[in-house]
Amino acid sequence: MIKIAIMGYGTVGSGVAEVIQKNAASITRKAGEQIEIARILDLRDFPNSPFRDRFTKDFEDIVNDPDIRIVVETMGGLRPAYDFVKSCLSAGKSVVTSNKELVAAKGDELLALAKANNLNFLFEASVGGGIPILRPLDQCLAANEVYEVAGILNGTTNFILTKMIDEGMTFEYALSLAQQLGYAERDPSADVEGADACRKICILASLAFGRHVYPEQVLTEGITRVTLDDVRYAEAWGGVLKLIGRAKRLEDGRLYAIVCPMFLPKNSPLAEVHDVFNAILVRGDAIGDVMFYGRGAGKLPTASAVVADVIDEVKHLDARKYLFWEPGEEGYVIDCRDGSDRTFVRLSCTDSEKAWAALNFSLPGCERIRAEGVPAGELAVITPYLSEQELENKLAALPDAQVVSRIRVADF
Amino acid sequence: MIKIAIMGYGTVGSGVAEVIQKNAASITRKAGEQIEIARILDLRDFPNSPFRDRFTKDFEDIVNDPDIRIVVETMGGLRPAYDFVKSCLSAGKSVVTSNKELVAAKGDELLALAKANNLNFLFEASVGGGIPILRPLDQCLAANEVYEVAGILNGTTNFILTKMIDEGMTFEYALSLAQQLGYAERDPSADVEGADACRKICILASLAFGRHVYPEQVLTEGITRVTLDDVRYAEAWGGVLKLIGRAKRLEDGRLYAIVCPMFLPKNSPLAEVHDVFNAILVRGDAIGDVMFYGRGAGKLPTASAVVADVIDEVKHLDARKYLFWEPGEEGYVIDCRDGSDRTFVRLSCTDSEKAWAALNFSLPGCERIRAEGVPAGELAVITPYLSEQELENKLAALPDAQVVSRIRVADF
Repeated sequence: MIKIAIMGYGTVGSGVAEVIQKNAASITRKAGEQIEIARILDLRDFPNSPFRDRFTKDFEDIVNDPDIRIVVETMGGLRPAYDFVKSCLSAGKSVVTSNKELVAAKGDELLALAKANNLNFLFEASVGGGIPILRPLDQCLAANEVYEVAGILNGTTNFILTKMIDEGMTFEYALSLAQQLGYAERDPSADVEGADACRKICILASLAFGRHVYPEQVLTEGITRVTLDDVRYAEAWGGVLKLIGRAKRLEDGRLYAIVCPMFLPKNSPLAEVHDVFNAILVRGDAIGDVMFYGRGAGKLPTASAVVADVIDEVKHLDARKYLFWEPGEEGYVIDCRDGSDRTFVRLSCTDSEKAWAALNFSLPGCERIRAEGVPAGELAVITPYLSEQELENKLAALPDAQVVSRIRVADF
Repeated sequence: MIKIAIMGYGTVGSGVAEVIQKNAASITRKAGEQIEIARILDLRDFPNSPFRDRFTKDFEDIVNDPDIRIVVETMGGLRPAYDFVKSCLSAGKSVVTSNKELVAAKGDELLALAKANNLNFLFEASVGGGIPILRPLDQCLAANEVYEVAGILNGTTNFILTKMIDEGMTFEYALSLAQQLGYAERDPSADVEGADACRKICILASLAFGRHVYPEQVLTEGITRVTLDDVRYAEAWGGVLKLIGRAKRLEDGRLYAIVCPMFLPKNSPLAEVHDVFNAILVRGDAIGDVMFYGRGAGKLPTASAVVADVIDEVKHLDARKYLFWEPGEEGYVIDCRDGSDRTFVRLSCTDSEKAWAALNFSLPGCERIRAEGVPAGELAVITPYLSEQELENKLAALPDAQVVSRIRVADF
């Protein structure tokens, strides 16, 4: 029998306890050992929980218990989760976490600590909820040179955009609906401003390319400025507007990593991912495009991914698992404004035909988009590939044209 | 250094050699050992191959070489692949195969033999080409009760159906185009009659539910009888026609397993899988719906899955990996004609209004479909859930109505 502890009895932590109890028989068969939840750390009281005799408010009860071999961290947030996980690894306990903020900020350090102590540190649930992605990505990596990872990584914003696209809801209305349905927090900023997607693309990029990418290295833009007019232009262009996290290896070995709203072509496998669903596209030299799809959040999907990691750690108590990457470094991730992108640009101008002629002269190769129901007197185009600085120079030179919005265009 | 042999230097086998050579550095890093292709078995001559000095026509050169620890079987077909793989496992060599016919027919026996000899027998490439599916499914199974697996498992037929749906091509024309493009064999029967998809759903079902499902237990219908009219009706209904392999656990523990054309609702994640792409949907109690998508065939995708298995076996030369299932048994898979399905039915009748009234009386709850461009004088409906026998009885009682086609409707 293997004793484990759970730190944080919120949505995911209580789901982990529920799954371990409900599927005990098949989990024991899979793990080869019975798993017992010996301790649960939470500052709150749960007098009616079936686990009420195992609760503690004192982390020392866990870290100092030599019988506890595996600790599940489902507290969320950087502190005190980071200190607790470090202490657990230093005390010889393997750790499973669903905490994307922790892994995105400190993954390299914690992986190194786990390695030094011959322990495992797994975090499948930190990206894509219940979708198996980190292990399959690692498997893809075995025989492939993966050159790009991109995905719809946040269910809340995908729900909001789906409502804007399919039902013409405004951003504000769709957000309040998401809050009513429990898909968005009362403070939705981590979702709608892109921080959540940013943490996930950091974890994916770190694993895919072997070197840590920190959130502050990734240009991150959410969907708060996306309007119904942008959505209509995307549709008129023959595509769809999605919030995308993307990381690709450049020829010089550096990384392009970004989170931003993007125009996707209709035939992109990511274009048909609706509502709260997530999907991650992995592109490799031998494998081609592979996509993983499912619910990216939710109590039981996330808990089932955590439990799968726990089972894996039980099976490898005295052996190291594969996940590992090197610390990041300055200059490894480029400033995405220097990257080369096609961009959707909306210009407000007094004479759109004149502006179109001027743009055609200064920046040949633009594709014009005409949409219905958008403000009069606008010129909307998709530019050829160029950097943000080049684009800004071209646009600044246009007489009598004001940029209304600018959205990158995906080539997947 | 680990020596391996490849049996069968066709498309996949030569791809395996190519991937091992091309990505040698990263493969060595992943596997922890250098992998050397010591022998290649093929009856043909390859005087210009970079591996020309390793070819043999004699299987004994491989099975009797104690230095060869892992054998890759990419010959295809049941014989002699089955005998060779058995001999290799008996001689203490782990085996990797891409051969779905072999695994679907003999997987239980070969897994048992591998287990008895403390060896590994892996076959990720046998389903979904380069899409990682068997390992992620195994991972899903760890903390989930998976209750259904369904997928678009054959790229050739999906290409043909896509051309019929999007471009109005006839089956015959789309098939000849697939042959010109190299997506279909000169003898396309294994694809278009469903045998290939049947083998794959057998492997998926065996792994997902722990007991071998043999191809002859699975009701299998291909797409040779699908017409453009059926496609038009699916569209008019608001869905799409796809060839689906499906296995679900019934409440009594038995299995419903089938390969057949199906009407899918437009919002099904499988509905948007086009061209030669494959996708596999896994449905579990905790995880919800998860889907895996990518190219289901092709030299390099399939080869990369084989090489990932080889790497896994190198890392576990003296330890058993997880994949396992029990032998099948009679009565475990039900006769799908006894299952409960909604069905699309096309009837040819002299008076369709009269037939509709009669059907409404004998079988209440049908949904009528009206489509454009289909033969006059037809009545087309979607029935409520009922068994094939019940449906046949109802239809037989209709005066003056002949069944033109009958296609099952998916509830995913």
